[in-house]
Amino acid sequence: MSKYPRPLDRLITELAKLPGIGQKTAQRLAFHILSMNGESAMDLAKSIVDAKQQLRYCSVCGNLTEEDPCEICSDSTRDRSCVCVVESPRDVAAIERMREYKGLYHVLHGVISPIDGVGPNDINMKQLIVRLRESEEIKEVILATNPNIEGEATAMYAAKLIKPSGIRVSRIAHGVPIGGDLDYTDDVTLSIAMESRREIP
Amino acid sequence: MSKYPRPLDRLITELAKLPGIGQKTAQRLAFHILSMNGESAMDLAKSIVDAKQQLRYCSVCGNLTEEDPCEICSDSTRDRSCVCVVESPRDVAAIERMREYKGLYHVLHGVISPIDGVGPNDINMKQLIVRLRESEEIKEVILATNPNIEGEATAMYAAKLIKPSGIRVSRIAHGVPIGGDLDYTDDVTLSIAMESRREIP
Repeated sequence: MSKYPRPLDRLITELAKLPGIGQKTAQRLAFHILSMNGESAMDLAKSIVDAKQQLRYCSVCGNLTEEDPCEICSDSTRDRSCVCVVESPRDVAAIERMREYKGLYHVLHGVISPIDGVGPNDINMKQLIVRLRESEEIKEVILATNPNIEGEATAMYAAKLIKPSGIRVSRIAHGVPIGGDLDYTDDVTLSIAMESRREIP
Repeated sequence: MSKYPRPLDRLITELAKLPGIGQKTAQRLAFHILSMNGESAMDLAKSIVDAKQQLRYCSVCGNLTEEDPCEICSDSTRDRSCVCVVESPRDVAAIERMREYKGLYHVLHGVISPIDGVGPNDINMKQLIVRLRESEEIKEVILATNPNIEGEATAMYAAKLIKPSGIRVSRIAHGVPIGGDLDYTDDVTLSIAMESRREIP
């Protein structure tokens, strides 16, 4: 039984629905929001409404965007022969931050995960195949799903579908991360790093 | 340099202003909000606006409320001879959850903290003194500020101001928390617990 006035209770309930926000944190955030000046609180509320209303998914690549097609898809300076397949718009942002990749993207919005009941038809897999079939420019697909069981399975599934078309399919390299510590690297990563070793020329 | 569309960037910025929410957490929350259905996102935004617009401070005790005076101040079944002085509305809620205290409250909205430039005039201290002077019913004031340096100093300051009026002033007990472990209790708490020991009758 809560002892807060109703609007505060509702705010706490809504905040506690967010991932990683427990009841105590939600309370702390709610009290902080109440202590903010009116304008800052409205800015926060408005940013939620705006983000929700103004953002959509690019009809070509599935990335988050204000305009359709998105900035990357409509950027004529980018290399249209290469498509990098990722799980989510966050991965696009991560790769873009690197400022080295100049190709296009395809966002799957998930991975194949039978345990969670997610099959190939529940993610943007079909759209990828159709996109590759319809485009004559795409020469390489880089599979950049996350290096875990579902990500690997999804990459393997995609590779199998794409290979027959003659398009080059690659997978991002796995290994010991730069700045990492061998002693703290898990066995699977270490064994992959050994297996995928490269000769120093 | 961010690589997100502007509305998403703004949402991340606003979320990252909240206490304890860093850049990474703000991103995670923002993506979660975008993945929520439209209605849930609007509920969240609306709960912020509503809480901010519908809640005010009780003109008598300073607690958060929809109505002025608040539910507790206008509840005729409560013991009007006792006022519990706390730092914030969260403390009122904590004491109310206990369901044992039946008196009234006074919320200071802060503590005296010279380091932070907060003096007695920056919190609801004067209002407390005026309230005690104008009321003929109040017989006891329980000082329930937090058991830290600022809370203690504020309690001592309030006690000094109230004592001359003849009203009984008490302080919540300090000691080893129930369910705690002596080994993990800090020295100050332990020494206070020893000092304030009570004879078993």
